[in-house]
Amino acid sequence: MASSPRVDYLVLTLDVLDLDRQTTFWCEAFGYKHQGGVAQYHSLGDPADKMPKLLLQRVPEAKAAKNRLHIDFHVADVDAEAARIEALGATRVARREEFGLHWVTMQDPEGNEFCLVVS
Amino acid sequence: MASSPRVDYLVLTLDVLDLDRQTTFWCEAFGYKHQGGVAQYHSLGDPADKMPKLLLQRVPEAKAAKNRLHIDFHVADVDAEAARIEALGATRVARREEFGLHWVTMQDPEGNEFCLVVS
Repeated sequence: MASSPRVDYLVLTLDVLDLDRQTTFWCEAFGYKHQGGVAQYHSLGDPADKMPKLLLQRVPEAKAAKNRLHIDFHVADVDAEAARIEALGATRVARREEFGLHWVTMQDPEGNEFCLVVS
Repeated sequence: MASSPRVDYLVLTLDVLDLDRQTTFWCEAFGYKHQGGVAQYHSLGDPADKMPKLLLQRVPEAKAAKNRLHIDFHVADVDAEAARIEALGATRVARREEFGLHWVTMQDPEGNEFCLVVS
């Protein structure tokens, strides 16, 4: 019998071109705090501890295709958050209703997809 | 003054070609449980509640480039987990030591990158 998975926790790592700009965007957009870093990495944490840590990793190449993994941020007011985050440099891509839920698909300043959805 | 971010929680969404195969892999590899689904979606949850929910979403297109967002799974024994997860259909891509940490980079059966790192 195979042994059981033993995952203690997870961290999300996002490739970025502009480490400082993306640090500012992700902190202002989602409430992360820049907690430290070394070399090409910046570590962002959620003071409320409701979201996993986010590690921004500077890479030389730009985004070339849709990410197959993305984050859905659940928020109380999708339209208000979409407008606020758009003003920080994100782009609104699509809006849809599906299975009774209201979604807004957006891209961060480097084109990484994320969604806003009602909690 | 801009209002503050109001994120309640996040969910991770992964695009997949083979919904059933990827459901089995992600559950066996990381301890998620298939908790339900509708249409092209399967919702996977962590019974220990240490990881965010994972929503697998069937899409028509295959992976075309490195994902710019990936998950780092922190585990007690990286080599044991890498061997166990490889036997479930993942591929080991690289192994490195960086800043005193031991990382293994892997790909799931559809080529999605993830890392194993010591807790």
